[in-house]
Amino acid sequence: MASSSMGADTGSVLEQVADGLTVAELDERGLLQRIFPRLGGAPAAAVPVGPGDDAAVVAAPDGRTALSIDTLVQDQDFRLLWPAGYRTTGFDVGWKCAAQNLSDINAMGAEATSLVVSLTLPGSTAVAWVEDLADGLRAALAGLGAPRCAVVGGDLGGGPALVVTAAVTGDLGGRAPVLRSGARAGDLLAVTGSPGRAAAGLALLESRHPYEELPAALQELVAAQSRPTPPLALGPLAAQAGAHAMMDVSDGLVRDAGRLARASQVAIELDPQALLPFARPLAGAATLTGADPLAWVLAGGEDHGLLAAFGPRTVPPAGFTVVGRVSDGAGQVTVGGAEPGAVGWDHFAG
Amino acid sequence: MASSSMGADTGSVLEQVADGLTVAELDERGLLQRIFPRLGGAPAAAVPVGPGDDAAVVAAPDGRTALSIDTLVQDQDFRLLWPAGYRTTGFDVGWKCAAQNLSDINAMGAEATSLVVSLTLPGSTAVAWVEDLADGLRAALAGLGAPRCAVVGGDLGGGPALVVTAAVTGDLGGRAPVLRSGARAGDLLAVTGSPGRAAAGLALLESRHPYEELPAALQELVAAQSRPTPPLALGPLAAQAGAHAMMDVSDGLVRDAGRLARASQVAIELDPQALLPFARPLAGAATLTGADPLAWVLAGGEDHGLLAAFGPRTVPPAGFTVVGRVSDGAGQVTVGGAEPGAVGWDHFAG
Repeated sequence: MASSSMGADTGSVLEQVADGLTVAELDERGLLQRIFPRLGGAPAAAVPVGPGDDAAVVAAPDGRTALSIDTLVQDQDFRLLWPAGYRTTGFDVGWKCAAQNLSDINAMGAEATSLVVSLTLPGSTAVAWVEDLADGLRAALAGLGAPRCAVVGGDLGGGPALVVTAAVTGDLGGRAPVLRSGARAGDLLAVTGSPGRAAAGLALLESRHPYEELPAALQELVAAQSRPTPPLALGPLAAQAGAHAMMDVSDGLVRDAGRLARASQVAIELDPQALLPFARPLAGAATLTGADPLAWVLAGGEDHGLLAAFGPRTVPPAGFTVVGRVSDGAGQVTVGGAEPGAVGWDHFAG
Repeated sequence: MASSSMGADTGSVLEQVADGLTVAELDERGLLQRIFPRLGGAPAAAVPVGPGDDAAVVAAPDGRTALSIDTLVQDQDFRLLWPAGYRTTGFDVGWKCAAQNLSDINAMGAEATSLVVSLTLPGSTAVAWVEDLADGLRAALAGLGAPRCAVVGGDLGGGPALVVTAAVTGDLGGRAPVLRSGARAGDLLAVTGSPGRAAAGLALLESRHPYEELPAALQELVAAQSRPTPPLALGPLAAQAGAHAMMDVSDGLVRDAGRLARASQVAIELDPQALLPFARPLAGAATLTGADPLAWVLAGGEDHGLLAAFGPRTVPPAGFTVVGRVSDGAGQVTVGGAEPGAVGWDHFAG
């Protein structure tokens, strides 16, 4: 299992709502009646059949649908109570569940059209926490810019830990999907956003520095971890601009670049001078936690930005930063000509 | 939570393979490399992009896709070791995961086109168990008759218990989806298969009568529980025959008939004489476990047959048995004119 195990539970949802109703006190129908009104309606043309039947029916206007699935597990992907004292809200988990699924559709150059969500809930889970999760799902769809996407169905059940799985569909708008395998020697490699912020936020959450006392700029890094913001406009724009290859950066720049390089059978050279501007704003968090900010940029996951290869004469859409080049090879990734493992902040910042 | 809690874990996957490799000893890539070859390929026309990218791309030839999600949780939906000594195999869980998802698509009158599967696995899970799960998924697609459907992607992660979630897409073939809400006064109500068999199998698994010593006919009831067989040809056939309403019987005939009655704003009258032929073959299991076979027929879930309403002049397709009538009402279900709770085997068998 690649996901980092975070050991034993450090909090319980029950603690968060001292005297609230728990899901054990409601049946499935009662819980659904509390969740669905919070999710908002779906556009009738895009969703001919919404929640409440055996399956939903979603429009797929170009005769294809993109499809992905992603899961968040308590104490694997989030803690309910972090060492820094931050309590993960249902809203956070709902937002993150939507964001990471929408990001997978974005990375194909598609627009998300629907989510189905399966919740596995310990009986002690506060109903208010689940309602907050529904609010987070809806807020992410609106806030990230997925106006065509709605939650069209789901599944509820009990279990020993919170497990939130969503599957997402997407519309390619008649375009070819942008795969990981299309990068060619000579391409420019570009990323969106500022990689490493979510990893800095994770380090702050795992530290003993109280979250409440962090300056606003560092609390924003925590938000990058707990409520990531994939750039949903940029996937379709990159596809329209002719991106040769694209993927979601969920497991770190070097690791995901390696996947793109192997899928395309090319080599990727990352330019450390292009990455330093991402590392510098992380210096405060790095000092506080004793970390290397360039390591966050190179290896930190969960930002859910895009990594894309464009032809050498293509100007990437605004929002992309060129960070490297593609050359002939067989899946190698180097940073300034060196193995990524040998690269640290000290090499470039000093 | 409606699902029956089954208390503490009564077995561990590790026990099942005394000296095998566990998933904690492999990274995600290594585990995927063992799973994907076992799933078989997908038809290229139906699945333009299969596993390995951020999302799959699936054909949706009529411009719509049906979509559903369903989850199995260890110790909620299955025990790894049952009181009767039966060990649930990975193959069982893979089969059941596929079957219950395919059944939801069948209930819309659609044909399944793809599955995406998310596995949450304790680190102690034997790799061989996960390979067996992959074999069960593939065998169910072939054995249940879903030739257009393939596993096109997935997600892997760690967690405290086995959680297997799949989302499924389906093709309506240009037809209107058959909803729960279309039943009308005067319709005939019909079911497929023989309701109650999976519930009888569950009772045998929960009993102390050793599984290995059960006669073949009773072991077949256990198989109805552990490897259900939704009638995938009959959903589209019922749609073509003009079924007014349809759903999957997953939570018991009376309970699911109540959902259909409420969605359609009608009353449903079940005919006990039509149900008795389903109860009689369960008499042996009922005697062994001290249960009421008609209660299994009326309230037992997980058979994953279909419940459908047809116009009074429609001959339901072969495989359906008429078991009741639809009349004016507001969601009531009666059995021989009585409240279902008052109905028992003794009333009719004596």
